[in-house]
Amino acid sequence: MFKINKERNTVKMTKYVYAFGNGAAEGDGARKDLLGGKGAGLAEMARLGLPVPAGFTITTQACTAYFKSGGHYPPTLKDEVEEALAGVEAVMGKTFGDPKNPLLVSCRSGARRSMPGMMETVLNVGLTTATIPGMIAKTGNARFVYDAYRRLIMMYSDVVMEKAEGIEPEEGKAVREQLEHLMEAMKQEKGYSGDTDFTADDLKTLSEQFKKKVKEVLGTAFPDDPMAQLWGAVGAVFKSWNGKRSVSYRRIENIPDEWGTACNVQSMVFGNMGNTSATGVGFTRNPATGENTFYGEWLPNAQGEDVVAGIRTPNPINDATKNDQNAHLPSLEAAMPDAYRQLLDVRRRLETHFKDMQDIEFTIEENRLYMLQTREGKRTGLAALNMAMDMLEEGLINEKTAVTRVLPHQLDEMLHPLVDPEAEKNVRAIAKGLPAGPGAAFGQIVFNSMDAVAWNKAGKKVILVREETNPEDVEGMRAAEAILTARGGMTSHAALVARGWGKCCVVGAGALKLDPREKTLTVDGKVYHEGDQFTLNGTRGLVYEGELPMMDATESPRLKEFLTIVDQYRTMKVRTNAETPKDIWMAKEFGAEGIGLFRTEHMFYGEGAETPLFLLRKVIMSNTTAERRAALDELAPFVKDDVETALEIMDGLPVTIRLLDPPLHEFVPKRPETRARLAQALGIDENEITKRSDAISENNPMMGHRGVRLGITYPEIAEMQFRAILEAAAELIIYGKNPIPEIMVPVTCDVRELDEIKIIFDRVYAEVIAKYKFEYMDCQYGTMIEIPRAARLSDQMAKTAEFFSYGTNDLTQMFFGFSRDDIGGFMVDYIDKKILKKDPFQTIDFEGVGPLIQESVQKGRATRPNLKIGICGEHGGDAESVKFCFDCGFDYVSCSPYRLPIARLAAAQAAIEAEEKAKKS
Amino acid sequence: MFKINKERNTVKMTKYVYAFGNGAAEGDGARKDLLGGKGAGLAEMARLGLPVPAGFTITTQACTAYFKSGGHYPPTLKDEVEEALAGVEAVMGKTFGDPKNPLLVSCRSGARRSMPGMMETVLNVGLTTATIPGMIAKTGNARFVYDAYRRLIMMYSDVVMEKAEGIEPEEGKAVREQLEHLMEAMKQEKGYSGDTDFTADDLKTLSEQFKKKVKEVLGTAFPDDPMAQLWGAVGAVFKSWNGKRSVSYRRIENIPDEWGTACNVQSMVFGNMGNTSATGVGFTRNPATGENTFYGEWLPNAQGEDVVAGIRTPNPINDATKNDQNAHLPSLEAAMPDAYRQLLDVRRRLETHFKDMQDIEFTIEENRLYMLQTREGKRTGLAALNMAMDMLEEGLINEKTAVTRVLPHQLDEMLHPLVDPEAEKNVRAIAKGLPAGPGAAFGQIVFNSMDAVAWNKAGKKVILVREETNPEDVEGMRAAEAILTARGGMTSHAALVARGWGKCCVVGAGALKLDPREKTLTVDGKVYHEGDQFTLNGTRGLVYEGELPMMDATESPRLKEFLTIVDQYRTMKVRTNAETPKDIWMAKEFGAEGIGLFRTEHMFYGEGAETPLFLLRKVIMSNTTAERRAALDELAPFVKDDVETALEIMDGLPVTIRLLDPPLHEFVPKRPETRARLAQALGIDENEITKRSDAISENNPMMGHRGVRLGITYPEIAEMQFRAILEAAAELIIYGKNPIPEIMVPVTCDVRELDEIKIIFDRVYAEVIAKYKFEYMDCQYGTMIEIPRAARLSDQMAKTAEFFSYGTNDLTQMFFGFSRDDIGGFMVDYIDKKILKKDPFQTIDFEGVGPLIQESVQKGRATRPNLKIGICGEHGGDAESVKFCFDCGFDYVSCSPYRLPIARLAAAQAAIEAEEKAKKS
Repeated sequence: MFKINKERNTVKMTKYVYAFGNGAAEGDGARKDLLGGKGAGLAEMARLGLPVPAGFTITTQACTAYFKSGGHYPPTLKDEVEEALAGVEAVMGKTFGDPKNPLLVSCRSGARRSMPGMMETVLNVGLTTATIPGMIAKTGNARFVYDAYRRLIMMYSDVVMEKAEGIEPEEGKAVREQLEHLMEAMKQEKGYSGDTDFTADDLKTLSEQFKKKVKEVLGTAFPDDPMAQLWGAVGAVFKSWNGKRSVSYRRIENIPDEWGTACNVQSMVFGNMGNTSATGVGFTRNPATGENTFYGEWLPNAQGEDVVAGIRTPNPINDATKNDQNAHLPSLEAAMPDAYRQLLDVRRRLETHFKDMQDIEFTIEENRLYMLQTREGKRTGLAALNMAMDMLEEGLINEKTAVTRVLPHQLDEMLHPLVDPEAEKNVRAIAKGLPAGPGAAFGQIVFNSMDAVAWNKAGKKVILVREETNPEDVEGMRAAEAILTARGGMTSHAALVARGWGKCCVVGAGALKLDPREKTLTVDGKVYHEGDQFTLNGTRGLVYEGELPMMDATESPRLKEFLTIVDQYRTMKVRTNAETPKDIWMAKEFGAEGIGLFRTEHMFYGEGAETPLFLLRKVIMSNTTAERRAALDELAPFVKDDVETALEIMDGLPVTIRLLDPPLHEFVPKRPETRARLAQALGIDENEITKRSDAISENNPMMGHRGVRLGITYPEIAEMQFRAILEAAAELIIYGKNPIPEIMVPVTCDVRELDEIKIIFDRVYAEVIAKYKFEYMDCQYGTMIEIPRAARLSDQMAKTAEFFSYGTNDLTQMFFGFSRDDIGGFMVDYIDKKILKKDPFQTIDFEGVGPLIQESVQKGRATRPNLKIGICGEHGGDAESVKFCFDCGFDYVSCSPYRLPIARLAAAQAAIEAEEKAKKS
Repeated sequence: MFKINKERNTVKMTKYVYAFGNGAAEGDGARKDLLGGKGAGLAEMARLGLPVPAGFTITTQACTAYFKSGGHYPPTLKDEVEEALAGVEAVMGKTFGDPKNPLLVSCRSGARRSMPGMMETVLNVGLTTATIPGMIAKTGNARFVYDAYRRLIMMYSDVVMEKAEGIEPEEGKAVREQLEHLMEAMKQEKGYSGDTDFTADDLKTLSEQFKKKVKEVLGTAFPDDPMAQLWGAVGAVFKSWNGKRSVSYRRIENIPDEWGTACNVQSMVFGNMGNTSATGVGFTRNPATGENTFYGEWLPNAQGEDVVAGIRTPNPINDATKNDQNAHLPSLEAAMPDAYRQLLDVRRRLETHFKDMQDIEFTIEENRLYMLQTREGKRTGLAALNMAMDMLEEGLINEKTAVTRVLPHQLDEMLHPLVDPEAEKNVRAIAKGLPAGPGAAFGQIVFNSMDAVAWNKAGKKVILVREETNPEDVEGMRAAEAILTARGGMTSHAALVARGWGKCCVVGAGALKLDPREKTLTVDGKVYHEGDQFTLNGTRGLVYEGELPMMDATESPRLKEFLTIVDQYRTMKVRTNAETPKDIWMAKEFGAEGIGLFRTEHMFYGEGAETPLFLLRKVIMSNTTAERRAALDELAPFVKDDVETALEIMDGLPVTIRLLDPPLHEFVPKRPETRARLAQALGIDENEITKRSDAISENNPMMGHRGVRLGITYPEIAEMQFRAILEAAAELIIYGKNPIPEIMVPVTCDVRELDEIKIIFDRVYAEVIAKYKFEYMDCQYGTMIEIPRAARLSDQMAKTAEFFSYGTNDLTQMFFGFSRDDIGGFMVDYIDKKILKKDPFQTIDFEGVGPLIQESVQKGRATRPNLKIGICGEHGGDAESVKFCFDCGFDYVSCSPYRLPIARLAAAQAAIEAEEKAKKS
């Protein structure tokens, strides 16, 4: 039995190596931070008694120590590794470097969170001139051993000797390419058509040529000492944490640089030892739909990397996994029924144990199953929802867990647009592939990652089309609306990455003939060029020429059911930012518990705006207060109607109405024709309009004469709005409704602004209740906190304001001095160069704006303990920001109707998390 | 002897009444907050044994209690007043309301700070039908008594019965006007030419008519009870604190509303009892020049108000006070030599006692001198400087006191422009008046206060021309560049107010014939209209037609001497914001100890900018980094030269060079012709320029792609600047100079921006010291704190920044969300409505921006204890802001060259104040 070294734990010394195998492990599944995801999964599987080849994990701590010391391993590491290796040798009955019975190992990276394909792996470590004979003797397969040897040299020289050393070869001079040339040369010389034609002797000769070439190109020899190989591989794995691709991926995924990677050293098992061997990957449930069927792909006589690389279309693991591309290939269930049955058993045990869908890797070596990996499987939003609901029904998980199983952004993905099915009926797809990422997307096709990034920067929507994607394509995939590949399966790189991001993706569309050099794509003889427009249906795997109409995803009953459960665990309210009846009704459907931001100026934009806009322009062109009052009187009924409609739809729920916000010059027509028409209608000279427009135009309108400042200068504008709102509510009350208006004063920086306008409000309020013979009516008076000064002076603001609503868009603008309209020029650089972790307009800047809001909330509530607090910036629909608002004690968040499900889920998850935390402490 | 009531002090009860007279007083000069300025002065004079008519002061506390209680006097006040009145009666040997020997009193306002003419006064209180016979018997002058009586009725009905009651009569229906009509009617009936023709009987009849009319107009009778008169007058004085004029004046002068006014009740003495009586005002030294001569004006047989009202041109008090307007009038020295000698003695005693120039009021009743007021005299900047230096030389005050005697803004006034004397030689003044406010001004003439305000709002410079000014004109005087009156003397309302504000002012220009209705002004038959351009020389009292060239005030040797003393008490450094050699040299003259803000972009503006601007445009039009680098290489020598010049002039003093700040689109030509020319010069299509310009144009440039953001996107721009600056310094070092460059990164919001750019800086630094074979060179790397986020995260900013310089202009903009360019539309309303106490762009907003800066300084120094801290916003030249910076522990302030004397003085005064405070505690 495997001997667990318990003594080391008693010594007060950092333990860097955790062994596993033979039904036991020093680590466990909970220690992902230390062992990385892969290491933790292996440990846990070993503990479950699943067939895991023995090995050990060098911890992420060792990695960070390695970097901190400038590339030195911790002094105790050598002893620990040697001790662990001895344990592996004991379990496997083989010895590392032993000429007779050699143990070979793999060295694989494994960070706390999965970074698929971003870091390095070295296989077959331990194969040397000394151990080759023993391996041949044991396997009886010289060709296999020399093939493994030349692969080791190739991989090792590339990964360990070149990349990890930071050598940047000239174009076409990379050691790997030079070795490939040698292979190609021999193939030509021998007249071979493929790699499989090589004989054992060929491969032996090739290995010698390889070693010579490596020495020649890199100046050092390929190490023939197994321990040298091992330490080289470990170092390369560590160093790959700081490789360009990894860094790039971490930036996108917000993975901290400090985490580091673990390195898993594990006994090699071989899926490529003939037709009784195989390798494969699987998901315990369907990751695209969530269906409770085993889902996977496999390749006979192959090594693990072959499945994921997307070079061959892999076989389906069972009938459930079959599709148009792979239906003709034999399933594992049919080809190796015993191994398949073992796998099914493993699947069951894993799900029972982990209570979640697992993503697994396995190898079958001469009919014997080995598990190489298990981890929580990535899934689409739809699958996450369905699995959560299924597992809840199966009794595998409880409601609270179900709520936490769907990520808020996955709901977003589910609410992605779809290709309109009616329109789709009438067009023929030019190609069909696998539905790797759901939803629909439209864009111009580009053929490489760089172009995708560049076109995206230029404001274009693009679809990245590739033969297959690899980790170098990550930036381009990010920039693209959707990804389309000609090769690869549902578990290919493109599919995994796109699914993780909730991005529309079609893979393995074999009909596409790509010429990335010429930047063309041929389907059935028709040639498409860079910039041509395509529409993808990622839910069905279809590719269309041109732009197809799209539609919003309709609400699924399952989603409704899920959100009903979600709402049981949610304590913070959600409201919406909406003005039109259509949007308000939709928001109610999506669960809005009120309107958090009703922009009064919306009536001057869009359809039906003509008359109100004309009247507003009349207000603007007025020369005296009397003229302005007269024009405002004409405008008032429109405002009243508008507000009344919103209050009526939201009957019984609060509606926060913001006073006129934009600077007036926004409404003055710009075009001479429109100006002329306006002049005629108003009976004034056109020059008057130009003069007035010039007089009120601004250099920095965002910080100009807007918001409350308008009301200070033109109190009659505020007065008209107060009266319209209060009378709208009064009339509804008379009709037996329950309107709950809240008046929000925008762009305030000082409580005296609120006080000044409140005098008008109080007077109008008294007049309105007198007019309608009420004793009282409900109408709170509050402010938007969107100017840094107001946030800082919130103790004062709360003296007059009955509620605060954080306008985080403007607050972010002023606090950073970033004009949202103008960040295009530099925000990309700020994110690229990691100056900012995230775009602060998407997620609240937790370093700067966040603490300011916290301080503001505390100050506000210190003055007025029952101060109602909400948010109406776009952050109200961002999951992380919603959680922040919950933690700050907000009463509600408000967002656009489509983001309501996200806000509801994020709020519920925040409440659950807080409850869990409270329980623990 | 006057009996001071000491018992009351022992009772724990607020004392509201403080008596004075007969060589003693309950209060003293130090209690201005309680007694008001006038009350404190009277008490102090009484203590000095000067001839003060006995009286008592009702405190400001009584006034504030009166307002707090909604218009009720404190319950104990009645007893206190009666007791004090009894004391006055005892001293004066007269009894209030006594038919035989009645005491009459005046009731005068008196706030903590002088508010000339803003509040009310009632004289002759105590004259009733019962006391008139006694007064006649005592004075033997029935005409005088009835004249006093009709004046009392007029004043009382106006001030107490109408204004204080808040009655707003229709146009022309004010009680005062109606009484004037009665007087006019009688004059006409009797065929009198003037008031002096009225006989005692006429005045008696008139008094009866007055009382009837008062009853008719106001519905209540003029009180015939002396105590009723007294309390009415006290209430009117209190209420006048909240009169429109007072409130308006307080807003301008930043006097808190909470202070309240005291009410001084004092025995009447009469300057209008014939030719042995007189009244006058004086300054113990010349308030315009500071000359150590007694300076004053008087009127024989007149009451005090007549001198100040400006109705008659008053007589000079002595030869020193004579001028063109009053030289023909007899001086007090000549007319009443005894009284004058007494006055000279008073002057000496006051200066010896107060050790400062006093502004006094006196009355001579039948050859007997009475002092009615003393207070610190307002003075021009020039006078303040000269007096401070004279008194220092006289040994009256010490250096520290001398430093505090000149207000920083008075230096500003001294540095006001003057009319160019050369130009002045060649033109004839159209009129001559008194030089009431120094300096020169140019503007368009307007004839009333409202027009002055309106024209000023419209951006015009105006000169307010009035027959004479009164407190209702305050707003217009404020709005005008200068004030010009046809009547009145150096102590008239216009002169006092203008001098207080350091505003150019000419008074008593008798040649002007005004027609305010027609808005014309006639001089020597020539008619001038509203809007005509005038130039005033306020230092000489001259009025010119049209615009005359002006020049900067040259430095006076006395100012230099004063500033030398100032600098001995100053601990904080002063630097300047300057770029051109001319400005830098000037700043050195003005005492700059370095440059706090050298704007690199200045070279692209103004003269000689053509070549650098062209090269910058080439940079902007570059399509690739290589092109941009090439253009930058061409530009570099200009930048280097520019910086080298500044460093050389400031040899041995620090020069803070700010990296390029404005967004690039600012430099793209706007006009088609210029674009065409640029296109030709660059050999590109004109459309290219338009395209590029459109691409980089911004909606809110203030928060756009500028400052450090340019360096993040185009590191080569930052690199060029670093190299130019460091090489400029290196070359100066080689020439044996001692350059101290400091590089300031603008518009930062996150320390990672500083870090990113620092990588370039460090590399260039290493390259430059290698090139010049130095081991080290001096160059600090710091940042401007001008974005609220940077201020909040100053602990982090200071990790990389070696210095902070607060860019308070931008910090104020972002913190308030006020675009400086666009506040024109509403800032006036904000100040008018008291939403903001002051324009935050002039004086640091101590409520909001101030605490943010304090927090930032603390956080910055917590990270880096020796962090150098300065300010380079325009607040660096504002006295209050400089004091704030000193209190925050700044190392220096930086301002424009002309404001350096102000900054030096403000810094010294702050240091002295802090020292005094430290001593006390």
